[in-house]
Amino acid sequence: MEQTLKVCVYGATGYTGIELLRYLTNHPHVRVVSAVSKTYAGRYISDLLPYFSHFYLSKLMLTEEPQEDFDLAFLCLPHDVSLSTAPSLLEKGKLVVDLSGAYRISDPNLYPEFYGFEHTHRELLQHAVYGLPEIFREIIKRGRFVANPGCYPTAVLLGLYPFLKEGVSFDKVIVDAISGVSGAGRKTTQHFHYPEMEQSIIAYSVHKHRHTPEMEDIIKRISGKHVKVRFTPKVVPTSRGMLATIYLHTEEKHVEELFWETYKEERFVKVVKDPPTTKYVIGTNMCLLYPYYDERTQMAVIVSVIDNLGKGASSQAVQNMNLMLGFEESTGIETLALFP
Amino acid sequence: MEQTLKVCVYGATGYTGIELLRYLTNHPHVRVVSAVSKTYAGRYISDLLPYFSHFYLSKLMLTEEPQEDFDLAFLCLPHDVSLSTAPSLLEKGKLVVDLSGAYRISDPNLYPEFYGFEHTHRELLQHAVYGLPEIFREIIKRGRFVANPGCYPTAVLLGLYPFLKEGVSFDKVIVDAISGVSGAGRKTTQHFHYPEMEQSIIAYSVHKHRHTPEMEDIIKRISGKHVKVRFTPKVVPTSRGMLATIYLHTEEKHVEELFWETYKEERFVKVVKDPPTTKYVIGTNMCLLYPYYDERTQMAVIVSVIDNLGKGASSQAVQNMNLMLGFEESTGIETLALFP
Amino acid sequence: MEQTLKVCVYGATGYTGIELLRYLTNHPHVRVVSAVSKTYAGRYISDLLPYFSHFYLSKLMLTEEPQEDFDLAFLCLPHDVSLSTAPSLLEKGKLVVDLSGAYRISDPNLYPEFYGFEHTHRELLQHAVYGLPEIFREIIKRGRFVANPGCYPTAVLLGLYPFLKEGVSFDKVIVDAISGVSGAGRKTTQHFHYPEMEQSIIAYSVHKHRHTPEMEDIIKRISGKHVKVRFTPKVVPTSRGMLATIYLHTEEKHVEELFWETYKEERFVKVVKDPPTTKYVIGTNMCLLYPYYDERTQMAVIVSVIDNLGKGASSQAVQNMNLMLGFEESTGIETLALFP
Amino acid sequence: MEQTLKVCVYGATGYTGIELLRYLTNHPHVRVVSAVSKTYAGRYISDLLPYFSHFYLSKLMLTEEPQEDFDLAFLCLPHDVSLSTAPSLLEKGKLVVDLSGAYRISDPNLYPEFYGFEHTHRELLQHAVYGLPEIFREIIKRGRFVANPGCYPTAVLLGLYPFLKEGVSFDKVIVDAISGVSGAGRKTTQHFHYPEMEQSIIAYSVHKHRHTPEMEDIIKRISGKHVKVRFTPKVVPTSRGMLATIYLHTEEKHVEELFWETYKEERFVKVVKDPPTTKYVIGTNMCLLYPYYDERTQMAVIVSVIDNLGKGASSQAVQNMNLMLGFEESTGIETLALFP
Repeated sequence: MEQTLKVCVYGATGYTGIELLRYLTNHPHVRVVSAVSKTYAGRYISDLLPYFSHFYLSKLMLTEEPQEDFDLAFLCLPHDVSLSTAPSLLEKGKLVVDLSGAYRISDPNLYPEFYGFEHTHRELLQHAVYGLPEIFREIIKRGRFVANPGCYPTAVLLGLYPFLKEGVSFDKVIVDAISGVSGAGRKTTQHFHYPEMEQSIIAYSVHKHRHTPEMEDIIKRISGKHVKVRFTPKVVPTSRGMLATIYLHTEEKHVEELFWETYKEERFVKVVKDPPTTKYVIGTNMCLLYPYYDERTQMAVIVSVIDNLGKGASSQAVQNMNLMLGFEESTGIETLALFP
Repeated sequence: MEQTLKVCVYGATGYTGIELLRYLTNHPHVRVVSAVSKTYAGRYISDLLPYFSHFYLSKLMLTEEPQEDFDLAFLCLPHDVSLSTAPSLLEKGKLVVDLSGAYRISDPNLYPEFYGFEHTHRELLQHAVYGLPEIFREIIKRGRFVANPGCYPTAVLLGLYPFLKEGVSFDKVIVDAISGVSGAGRKTTQHFHYPEMEQSIIAYSVHKHRHTPEMEDIIKRISGKHVKVRFTPKVVPTSRGMLATIYLHTEEKHVEELFWETYKEERFVKVVKDPPTTKYVIGTNMCLLYPYYDERTQMAVIVSVIDNLGKGASSQAVQNMNLMLGFEESTGIETLALFP
Repeated sequence: MEQTLKVCVYGATGYTGIELLRYLTNHPHVRVVSAVSKTYAGRYISDLLPYFSHFYLSKLMLTEEPQEDFDLAFLCLPHDVSLSTAPSLLEKGKLVVDLSGAYRISDPNLYPEFYGFEHTHRELLQHAVYGLPEIFREIIKRGRFVANPGCYPTAVLLGLYPFLKEGVSFDKVIVDAISGVSGAGRKTTQHFHYPEMEQSIIAYSVHKHRHTPEMEDIIKRISGKHVKVRFTPKVVPTSRGMLATIYLHTEEKHVEELFWETYKEERFVKVVKDPPTTKYVIGTNMCLLYPYYDERTQMAVIVSVIDNLGKGASSQAVQNMNLMLGFEESTGIETLALFP
Repeated sequence: MEQTLKVCVYGATGYTGIELLRYLTNHPHVRVVSAVSKTYAGRYISDLLPYFSHFYLSKLMLTEEPQEDFDLAFLCLPHDVSLSTAPSLLEKGKLVVDLSGAYRISDPNLYPEFYGFEHTHRELLQHAVYGLPEIFREIIKRGRFVANPGCYPTAVLLGLYPFLKEGVSFDKVIVDAISGVSGAGRKTTQHFHYPEMEQSIIAYSVHKHRHTPEMEDIIKRISGKHVKVRFTPKVVPTSRGMLATIYLHTEEKHVEELFWETYKEERFVKVVKDPPTTKYVIGTNMCLLYPYYDERTQMAVIVSVIDNLGKGASSQAVQNMNLMLGFEESTGIETLALFP
C-alpha cells in the first residue's frame, strides 16, 4: 500500500477515542486528519494530554466537525449519535468502523429495550459487518461498514467460538465477567469517584445488559442456533482489564485440544496453560484463553482475558481497518504489555 | 455474664489474627491474655502495629507458647498446625474456635486431596460444630469446638440457605466469586507483590479449591442432598472484600420473598434491593444478599457480599464465641463500614 | 454526664459528614437527632449506605432543615454556607463545631483571596476557638464555637508545636504534603474519576492554597512570630491518609527528645521510631510523628501522619465536642486502624 | 546504520530488565541475542510473560551466562554484581550501559557507607560516563561505559539543570520525592505485599539514601560547586511513576523562562504550564517539568515527573545506547502513555 489512508476519529476525547489515537499515531499507513470532539472543540489534543507533544497529532485541533476530507471514520460516539452519523458517512462513500453498539445487533426490534431508541436505519443493519476478525475475517475484508464488537462480547465469543465452529451443542451459557472501570466510560459518576471505587467490588445490570442480546445474536449468526446467555457483569478497582468466565454444559471433553486447534494460526489469540492475569494484556490487542473441562460437573469452563480498551475496543477497530484496507492485519497493533 | 473470659489467640500476627485482636480489644466481656506468634515472638503487638498503643494489648508480649491460663482459644493457624493444636487444647478443657480448615469437612478421606495431609483426628471431626450462626445457631450454642467457616463458603452458604431451608431442589450450583488479596494471607508471593497485583484480575484454583468440598459437605448437612458445586475463584486489586455470584436452575420464582422471609430477624444478614458493593461491608460482620430470578434462563442469581476477614473469618469467630458463651450475639462486632 | 447530648449534623452526606455519623453512632453520650442534607433530603441514611441498618440512625430521615431541637451542631458545609449558618445557630444558643474553613483564620482580610468571599461576620472571628486540642485544650473546654482545623494544618501544626512551645526560632517552614483523594471531597471531577486517578501522582495549588494562611495564623497565635510557610500539596491514589513532611532550619538538635517530652501525655499523638505509614492511622484519631535532625543540612525533618477524615476532620471534631461538654476526651474515638 | 547491534541483557527478569526488553523488542537496529537471569535460567521469557509470544524474543532461552557473542551489554544487576561484571565486559571490548549504582558516584570512598561495599575498581570510576543525555550528551556519544542514572537523580537533576547551567547560586536544595512501588524492585517484601501497600503512604530512608551523594556529585560535576541535598523519599500505592518537588532559595525570579530556554530543543523534556500527573509519562521516556517562583518565600519550586522505570531507568538506558552507537537519539523510545 503506497498511499496513506486519511482517517477521521469522531469522539476523540473519550477513552476509546484516546486509545485509538495512541494506536493510530504509530500506524505507518494512516494519518489522522481530523479529530472530532464536542467537549473539547477548539483545543489541541496535546493541551489535554501533554504526552502527544512531539507527534504530528499535537498540531491537530479538535473540532466540532471534520476539517478535512478523509477515507475512513472511526466512530467513538454515543450509540444514538452513531446511529445517524454512520449512514450519512456511508452515503458520502466513506468507510466506517463504528465502536458504538448502534449496528451490532441484527434485529432492529431489540434496540428500544436495550438501547432506548427506535432503530431508524433498519436497512443498514444488514450491511453492518460484525468486526470480530478471528471469526468473520473474510467478510470484514470485503466490508465497508464494520460494527466493532462490545468488550464483553469480544471476550466471550472468542471463548465460545471453538465450540460453535465444531458444532458442539448447548442451549445455555453462563457468563460471569469482570471489567475495569474504564469500560464505563469517561463521564464521571458518584460510584466511580476514586474514593468510592477503591476497595469496591460490585455487580451491575444483573437484570439485563445490552451485551446479552449481542452475544446471543452473534452465536446465532455463527451456529444457526438459539442459545440463551445468562450474563452478570462486575466492576473492580482497576482502570483497565477484563476477565470473563464462561460455563457451559457439554460432553465434549477435549476442550483444550479444541482451543489449540482453533487458534493455532492466530496472532492475537493465545491459548495458555495457566489462568492468565489481565495484566498480561493491558495495552495490547491480545486475548488469552484458558480452557478447562470439569469432569465432576460436566462443564466446560473457559477463562478469557482482554484489555477492554484494546481487543475490547480500539486496537480491534484498527485490526478491522487493516483488514478492510488490505494492510497486514497486525500493523500498528503489535504492542507489548506494560509490566509491572 | 459477670466474669471476663480469658482468651488466647494463636497465630496473632497473620491477617485473621490481627483482625481478631481488633474486634476483641473492644469486646466488653473478653480479655486477651496470650497472643501466640512464632514469627514475632518476643515483640509487642504495638511494636508491629503502633495503633495498638494506648490499649491494654500493647502490654502483651507475643510468645511462642501461651503465657497464661485461658478459657478459650482462637486458632488462626495453618491447617496442619491446627490439626494437632485443637485436640490438645480440647483435652485440657479449653473451648476452641478454629479459623483454619482442619475440621470443617466431615469426611476425613477428603483431607489428603484438598489439604495435603492425612487427617489424624478423625473422631474429632464429628464433634466440630460448623460455625455459621445463621444456619447452625442452636448447635453452636452448645458447642465446645467450632470450625469457623471458610470465607467463600460463608458468602455462598448464606446465599443458598433460603433454598435449602425451603427444600427447593437442585443438583448443581455454579459459584463465581471474587476475593480481595488479603484472603491469600500475609505471606508474600511474587504474584501479590504490589506492582504485579495492581491492575491484575486473575482466576486461580480453577481445577480444584478446598472450599468446594466444604460447600458441598455443608449443603448436604443442611438439606441431606448431594449437590455439586462448580466453583471458580478470582482475585482482584483490593485488600479486602468478597463478592460471590451463585447460579442455580430452579422453577422457584419467588426468590426475593424467600430471602426476605429467611433473614428478616437476622442482625448480620441483610437482603438488599440493589446490587451491593463490598465497600459497604468492609470492617464489619455483615453479609449483604441481592437475590434475583431470571425468567429467561430459569435461573436464580444470587449476589452475596462480605468482608473476607470479617464475616468471612474473624468477626464471625467472635460471633461464634458469643454464642458459645451465652453473650449477646452481636457483642463487640457491631461496627460500621469505613466509607469511603 | 447523665443526660444525652442532642446533636445535629449539617452536610451529613459528604465525606466528613458520613465519617462523623460513624463516630457519633457509637458515642455513648450523644444522640444524632437531625441530619441535614440538601442533596439527599427525604431519604434515609441507610438507603444510601446500607451498613447503617440496625443502628438507630437508620430511622432518621435526611432533611433540608433540622427536624428536632438540638444542643450542638456540626457543620460539614461548604465554607460560604458555614459562614452564615454558624452565627444564626450561635444566636439561638447552640454550640457549634464548624468543620469548614469559614472561621479558622483570624484576619478577615484574607478571606476574599483565599476563600472567594468577603467575611460578613468579622466580630465572630474573635470568638471562634481553633480546635486543635493538643495545643488549645483549655480554651476549647470553655468554647461555645469551635473552628475545626483543616487536615493539612492539623498534621503540620502538631509537627511544629514542640518547636513553637519551646521557643525554637525559625522564620520559614517548608511543608510538602501528600493527601488521599477523599480530602478533595465527594463531588465528582474528571481528574478524580477512578480510571484517571489510578497510577496518578499529582501536585496541585502550588501557587497558593487556603491552608497556608491558616498554618501561618496559628503559628503566630502560638508563638507570636511571623513564620512563612512554603506549602506544596500532592494527591496520590488512595482514598484516605495524609503524610506531611516539614522542613525547617534550626540549630536545635535534640528534636527527638523535644517531641517525646511534648507529647508524652497525649492519647492521640504518638512519637514513633520508624517512619510510619498512613495505613496505621486510617479510621482513627491518631497522629503519628517521626522527628529527625539532619546534621548535614542543619535541618529538622518531621514526618507527620494522620487520617485526613479522622484527626484531620471528623474524629477531631468529636474530640472537640468532648472537651466542650466535659466528656472524657477520648470517648467514642478510641478506634483501631483496619489492617490490612 | 546498516548492521544490527547485538545486545545482551543481564538481569532480564527484574523490573528494569523486563522494561528494557519491551523497548528493545521494537528497536529497529538492535537484536537481543542473550538474556541472562539467575532466577529463571532455563525458561523462556514468554513462559513467564506470555505477551512476549509472537515476538522473536519468545525463542530466546534465559540463561545463567550469555549464550552468544554481543556488542553491548545492559546491566540490570544488583550493585555489587555490576561492580565486577562491568570491568570484565569492558576488558573484552564490549560496550556497557550499567543500570545499577556501582559506577555513578565518582568518589570511591562513598561506596562503603552508601552501597555497603569497598569499591574494587576505582580506576574505572573515572571512565564511567554519567548517562543523563540532556546534560552530558556529547560525552555519552564518545562513551564506551555509561553509568545510567538513578531514578530520583534523573528527575531532580533535570529540574536543577537550568539553574546550574546559568550559574544561579545556591548552597542547599530540598528534595521531597514520591515513587511508585516498582522503584523498590521485584523482590517481595512484607511492606510491599499488596494488602499492606494499598492505602499506604510512607516515607523511608529519611536519614540517608544512596541517591543523595549521587545528586550532589553530579551537581558538582556540572557546576563545580558543593551543594547539599536534603532528600526525603516516599512510596505511594501505584506501580509506576515518580514526582519530585525541588525547593531552593534564589533571587532568580525568571524561572519559567529559564526552563523554556534550556529545554526548548529537547525531545524528552517538556516544560508544562500546569502541574503534571505521573499518568502522562507512564510507559514513556518523558520528563515533565513544572517550574514556579514563589515570591513570598523567595524560593524556586520545581515539580518534576517521570516514569521511574522509563526515563528513570530503561528507556533512558536505550537513549544512552542510541547516543553511543550514533543512532537517532529517540529511536525505539518514542512511545505514548497509556491513558487512562
